[in-house]
Amino acid sequence: MHIDLNRNSNIPLSVQIYQSISDRIASGLIEKGAKLPSVRSLSKTLKVSLVTAVKAYSLLEKDNFIATIQGKGTYVQSEDVVNNNNPENDSTSLDWQLSITDHLPRAQFWRQNINLNTKPQIQMSAAHVHSSLLPEQHISKHLSSLVLKNPSLLFEYGPIQGDLELRTSIANYLKTKDVSLSAEEIVITNGSQQAINLVARTFIGAGDVVIMEAPTYTAAIDVFRWQGATILSVPVDKEGMRIDLLLKICDSYSPKLIYTIPSYHNPTGTVMSMQRRRELLNIARDFNCLIVEDDPWSEITFEKSFLPSIKSLDTSGRVIYIKGFSKFLAPGCRIGTVSASGSILNRLVAAKANSDLGSPLLTQKALLPFLQSNFMEKHLKNLNSILIKRRNLALKLLTDHMPIDVKWAIPQGGPNIWITLPSWMSAESLLFEAQSRNIAFLPGSTCYPSEPEFNHIRIGFCFLDEHKLKEGILALCSIISSFIDQKYSHNDIPII
Amino acid sequence: MHIDLNRNSNIPLSVQIYQSISDRIASGLIEKGAKLPSVRSLSKTLKVSLVTAVKAYSLLEKDNFIATIQGKGTYVQSEDVVNNNNPENDSTSLDWQLSITDHLPRAQFWRQNINLNTKPQIQMSAAHVHSSLLPEQHISKHLSSLVLKNPSLLFEYGPIQGDLELRTSIANYLKTKDVSLSAEEIVITNGSQQAINLVARTFIGAGDVVIMEAPTYTAAIDVFRWQGATILSVPVDKEGMRIDLLLKICDSYSPKLIYTIPSYHNPTGTVMSMQRRRELLNIARDFNCLIVEDDPWSEITFEKSFLPSIKSLDTSGRVIYIKGFSKFLAPGCRIGTVSASGSILNRLVAAKANSDLGSPLLTQKALLPFLQSNFMEKHLKNLNSILIKRRNLALKLLTDHMPIDVKWAIPQGGPNIWITLPSWMSAESLLFEAQSRNIAFLPGSTCYPSEPEFNHIRIGFCFLDEHKLKEGILALCSIISSFIDQKYSHNDIPII
Repeated sequence: MHIDLNRNSNIPLSVQIYQSISDRIASGLIEKGAKLPSVRSLSKTLKVSLVTAVKAYSLLEKDNFIATIQGKGTYVQSEDVVNNNNPENDSTSLDWQLSITDHLPRAQFWRQNINLNTKPQIQMSAAHVHSSLLPEQHISKHLSSLVLKNPSLLFEYGPIQGDLELRTSIANYLKTKDVSLSAEEIVITNGSQQAINLVARTFIGAGDVVIMEAPTYTAAIDVFRWQGATILSVPVDKEGMRIDLLLKICDSYSPKLIYTIPSYHNPTGTVMSMQRRRELLNIARDFNCLIVEDDPWSEITFEKSFLPSIKSLDTSGRVIYIKGFSKFLAPGCRIGTVSASGSILNRLVAAKANSDLGSPLLTQKALLPFLQSNFMEKHLKNLNSILIKRRNLALKLLTDHMPIDVKWAIPQGGPNIWITLPSWMSAESLLFEAQSRNIAFLPGSTCYPSEPEFNHIRIGFCFLDEHKLKEGILALCSIISSFIDQKYSHNDIPII
Repeated sequence: MHIDLNRNSNIPLSVQIYQSISDRIASGLIEKGAKLPSVRSLSKTLKVSLVTAVKAYSLLEKDNFIATIQGKGTYVQSEDVVNNNNPENDSTSLDWQLSITDHLPRAQFWRQNINLNTKPQIQMSAAHVHSSLLPEQHISKHLSSLVLKNPSLLFEYGPIQGDLELRTSIANYLKTKDVSLSAEEIVITNGSQQAINLVARTFIGAGDVVIMEAPTYTAAIDVFRWQGATILSVPVDKEGMRIDLLLKICDSYSPKLIYTIPSYHNPTGTVMSMQRRRELLNIARDFNCLIVEDDPWSEITFEKSFLPSIKSLDTSGRVIYIKGFSKFLAPGCRIGTVSASGSILNRLVAAKANSDLGSPLLTQKALLPFLQSNFMEKHLKNLNSILIKRRNLALKLLTDHMPIDVKWAIPQGGPNIWITLPSWMSAESLLFEAQSRNIAFLPGSTCYPSEPEFNHIRIGFCFLDEHKLKEGILALCSIISSFIDQKYSHNDIPII
């Protein structure tokens, strides 16, 4: 377990250690019941004072991540530890592997995905559109004949930066969204996730300050933490990232990069206001930092007009724009893009070369017929007319069946509804109960870079048909109601 | 320009700075004619003494990477600098981007690939098989009907670890090569390159010691340098990595990882002897480090038997085994694998999730018909019968036409011939001349993690048909001869 400590940061070392260990535990990278080093050994390895190590462990114990068994040591919390059994497993021939330290502090997306391996029938955790609503026949027919006509697509390396025909088509498509880019400024990636990685890995090193919204996209937090970034977070309100608070942070720290999802923010669904988009750009100029604008699903919209992207307002190459095509078109193709200019672009192309020498050609060619025609417009119109019904159904069910203490925002786009539970309720306990009924959702705590809030959940309404969606939401409402009933029945016990 | 300095290393800081800057220049990440910081500013930024900064610049100047223009400053070497013109370009609105430091010290594979953009007709730099020798019809027919039958392959996310059917087939295939792995131990990656990245990014951080062969695979050096590794190199002789020298390094340093290509080594074609394979495994155990065994093309073989892989000798989960399917099967599918066990495996799967959430499903399914049948055996038999003719042709042409001062080894497998020029000859100058005749090869200096040798070149004989191969090698022989003639004609000038 390698822990990157930023000794120049205002964040106390004990909190940094807490963050690193709690993230590893929450990601399942340190297993339940595993023995942790003693405070003395931790203080020695990390070159911190004994007081700091003790404080870090106290914080972890307070939040129930770890437990100390008198005379035995400190363990990751598990049922065995609670029951005071011997929590250590039998030794195996692979035990030496634990001495191989790693630089992977967090993988919460992975953790949530592992939970799905139990195959819940009602997958409200999915933040994308079900394949039955996507242009399967159209694209597969095209691809089927293309591969016969041009089999070498499977047998030749494509250009590192991506297929030029696809980049040109994407540039044309983005123009319809008011984003003016040339094909030369676009790099094709394996989904948006690789795009975020290319940016983080190229520009962020241990201790660099990255600012993210809180909450934000789980797997983007995973990536920036992987690079050893010091992540500072800014809350989101109805108009998006709180620029007033951002400014305060920038005054005290020197951010290298600000990551934002301005349109139908993940997970809250918020749209950043026009004024804040402009202010954000000004702040990035003033503090000489990069903006990463992640735009995974602005195509899923229930509004008649859309706000210009921050990239379209940017005249100085300050914004790195990430556009994915998985969430509303073809998840299996894993096509994303990262766009930039000048030496920022140049370095991202070099990073793509180092990462995997380039994406497969065939899946790049798959999207062409859609992008080169007006099918995309028709597809999106049709898709959104279906999705708005699902959203409305979801909202109606929540209104009709959710206990009054539970709140949510009405998303004007994107695939998610962000639900806030009573402050005492734990989304993790809720998930545990939901999974036993084959239902999955995303616990909101995974969306916080630090200081997680445990009383939010994200549900997606685009992956399930109306029947399943109804079943899922009703079950969720019923579980939450029973949690509330239970709480109040306990509270009702008269104190004599 | 961020430079990772390992202050605990025996390598002098001036040499570390030299390495970092020279790599950026050789990779084109700092452009020709660009102005470098003054020694005073460098010493301040990197917190090193002025003497150290001066020494680093002297080394760079000695090797002709940079030049100082009196009264102006220090510049990356370029024609303008040589001619004492003003080497600075006009300022543009993107100039601020240069102040955004990056963590990307090297991208030599990318650099070489950019050179290919001039599209040389005779591409002897390619280290893979031409698509006309690959089972294009067979695989494309299968895929064409598969995509019609099951279009959702394009529209659904696959498992993060990779398609189970493919992993099972690969496990069965690897058994024919005496590598015994279960499907659960295999992770599907975007080519071997991503596999190397997953390993490096998970287990290597700034200053960790990685040992590589010298020379070795260019793009693997790019990756380990990207992670800030301190790379130490061990020469290769006829039996592969010099284990006696490796042992000496291990005694002085604490390696975290040893990267090796034991079978038909890239670029030299050497096969590591059985004894050394065993010794390497023992050393990894004794020094508690990982072995990464990269096996890109042991299928391309002109021998009747093969030595067991190091992975197959490993009983304690010490070896991470990387097997690619691009070099002899379907480069365009970008299918590679990384295999490990226990917590090493677990962490690599988490790393794959963080990297791109999983590879495209369709290209994974493309390889199935081959792996699930005996087509692979037939394909390889047929392929190798063609490739041995090309190798023999290449060797005969070299013997008949290459000047006597030039040496090469006879490869028993793999796609390359490693050629050693007279020690005074620069492969870079040779490449410059060759490219003007539309010929490309790989200059050997890119294959050295440090202290490059400039008098080697790597040519591939599997990408070109016999006609082009002949044309390329004859041209190469002619250029080299003319370089030698020129050298001796200069030397012949009588000194009066």
